[in-house]
Amino acid sequence: MAAKAFTGVPCLRCCPGDRFLSKSQIYGGRRNHRRNICPPISAVSSSSEPSIRIAAEKLRSDSKVETLLDSVKWDDKGLAVAIAQNVDTGAILMQGFANRKALATTILSRKATFYSRSRSSLWTKGETSMNFINVHDIFLDCDRDSIIYLGKPEGPTCHTGAETCYYSSVHDLLEGPKPNQDRLASTTLYSLEATISQRKDDIEAEQNGKPSWTKKLLLDKELLCSKIREEAGELIQTLLENEDGSRTASEMADLLYHAMVLLKLKDVKMEEVLGVLRKRFSKSGVEEKNSRRRPGK
Amino acid sequence: MAAKAFTGVPCLRCCPGDRFLSKSQIYGGRRNHRRNICPPISAVSSSSEPSIRIAAEKLRSDSKVETLLDSVKWDDKGLAVAIAQNVDTGAILMQGFANRKALATTILSRKATFYSRSRSSLWTKGETSMNFINVHDIFLDCDRDSIIYLGKPEGPTCHTGAETCYYSSVHDLLEGPKPNQDRLASTTLYSLEATISQRKDDIEAEQNGKPSWTKKLLLDKELLCSKIREEAGELIQTLLENEDGSRTASEMADLLYHAMVLLKLKDVKMEEVLGVLRKRFSKSGVEEKNSRRRPGK
Repeated sequence: MAAKAFTGVPCLRCCPGDRFLSKSQIYGGRRNHRRNICPPISAVSSSSEPSIRIAAEKLRSDSKVETLLDSVKWDDKGLAVAIAQNVDTGAILMQGFANRKALATTILSRKATFYSRSRSSLWTKGETSMNFINVHDIFLDCDRDSIIYLGKPEGPTCHTGAETCYYSSVHDLLEGPKPNQDRLASTTLYSLEATISQRKDDIEAEQNGKPSWTKKLLLDKELLCSKIREEAGELIQTLLENEDGSRTASEMADLLYHAMVLLKLKDVKMEEVLGVLRKRFSKSGVEEKNSRRRPGK
Repeated sequence: MAAKAFTGVPCLRCCPGDRFLSKSQIYGGRRNHRRNICPPISAVSSSSEPSIRIAAEKLRSDSKVETLLDSVKWDDKGLAVAIAQNVDTGAILMQGFANRKALATTILSRKATFYSRSRSSLWTKGETSMNFINVHDIFLDCDRDSIIYLGKPEGPTCHTGAETCYYSSVHDLLEGPKPNQDRLASTTLYSLEATISQRKDDIEAEQNGKPSWTKKLLLDKELLCSKIREEAGELIQTLLENEDGSRTASEMADLLYHAMVLLKLKDVKMEEVLGVLRKRFSKSGVEEKNSRRRPGK
C-alpha cells in the first residue's frame, strides 16, 4: 500500500476524516492548548507558516516521519500495540493500539495518541479527562510491531481514576475475594514505598500488627536519622575498604530503604525525586550545579 | 463458547495438541527442570498424584484458574496482549500475545508463556535460549484484555541479545543515522545509570568532553565519599528542621545520584540493589534484621 503523504497533525475533532493541520495551527491558540483539538475552520484558514525556512524544515521533518512510519510493521488492520509507560517510575500506565495516524500524531504533538478500535477513530489520552500523557520519547521493538510511549502522565491514567489500568493481580484473584483488593502492578521500589506507606497508615489507625522495623523508624526520628547516617557510612566503607560488590548492593539497599522511610515522613514520593533527577541530568552536572541557587548552603 | 476444562500445564513439546500434564509431571524431573518441556510418554504414564488431598486442592485451584480465564476478554482470535516487565527495574522486556492456554501455563509454571501467531503454537520465553522470565505476579487491566507478566529475566530477553526488545528510539531515528545508535528504552533511574556509565567509559577512553561533575567524582573517591556524607546530612536536615517537601525531594535526588556514582565505581547495578530489597521486604524488617548475619557490625 502506498504511504499517504503526511502533512501535519490530523484534526482530532474531525477524525477519522482526512483534514490535516500543522502543529502551529492546532496548538497555536491558547484556547486549544490543553484541549488538543483543532481551532474552528475560520481560524485555520487564516493561519499560515511564518517563513519559507520553517516550511522547508517541516517538509524535511515530514519526510523523515513518513520513512519511520513506513518502517513499522502494521498488522492486517493497520495497527500496532502501543504501551504507555511512566518515564520516571516505569509503571505501565495503559495499553492501546496505534495506527499510522496515531503514531504520527504522538510524534508531532508529544501527547500519547491511540486508535480506538471500538469507535474507529483516533483518541488522545486526556482529551476528555485532561489527564494527558506527555511523551518524552517513543521506542519501537526489534520486530517493529510494538511501540512504547515513554512519558509523564498529568494525572491518573485509568478511566476508573486509578493511577494505571493494571490493578487486578492474578495472585490476589486466585487467593479469593478480599476487601480493598485492588493493588497496582508495582515494581520493587514502588512495592516497598507502598509497604512503608501501609505501616504509616497502621500507626495512624492505631492498629496492632506484626512487629515492624519500619514502624519503629516512623515513630522515632532520631533513630531514623542515625540509621541514615550509619548506612551512608557503611556504603562509603565498602568503597574505601574495597569490600565485595554484594556488600555494596546490600548497604545501598539499606540506605535507600531508610531514606525512603524519611521520604514517607515528609510525604514525598520517589516519583518526585526521580522527576528532579530527570530535569537535572538533561544538563551536565557542572552546568546544573552552577545554575542552582541553594539557600543556606 | 463453553470453557474447556483445564487439567494442568499443556505440554510444550506437543503443543498445540491437547495433552495436558500436571506441574509435578512436567517439572518434577531434573532433566526437564530448565528445559520446560514434558518428559517422555513412558515417564508421564507412570506418574500419579501422591494423595487425594492434593488432587482435591488441584481441582479447586483449576476451577479458580478456569474462572479467571473466563473473565479475560479474549479477542476474535482468542488472544490478549501480554507484556513482560522486569519486576525490579520496570523495564518492558517484550510484548507478545497470550491465549487461554498461554496464560494458564504462565499461572501454573510461573514462566512467561505466549502464543506465537506466526507458528500457531505456545512458546515459553527461554525454551530455546534458556533466558526464561520467572513470573512473580500477573496483572490484568481494567478492560481485562491486556496482561502484564511481572517477572525476573534469567538473561537478555531479545533474540538479538539485547536486554529488552525496545532499543530503537524514534527520537534518535528522526535525528538521522549515528554510530552505535541503539539505546534501550530506559526510565529515569536507568538513564541516569547509563549516563554515569558513559562518563566512566569516557575517562577510560581518555576522551575529552564537556566538564563533568560525574567525572570529577569518579576520579576522586575522597570527594565522592564526602559528598555522600554531606547529602545524607542535608536530607536528614530537611526532616529535623521541617523544611519544605521540595527540599527533601531535591536532597534525596542528590544523595541517590552520588550513591549511584559509588555503585558504578564498584560495578554494582541498581537492579542488584533492588533485587536485595525485593528479597528483604517479603519478610518484616524486624524478622529480616534478626535473620541476617552481618560480619563486622
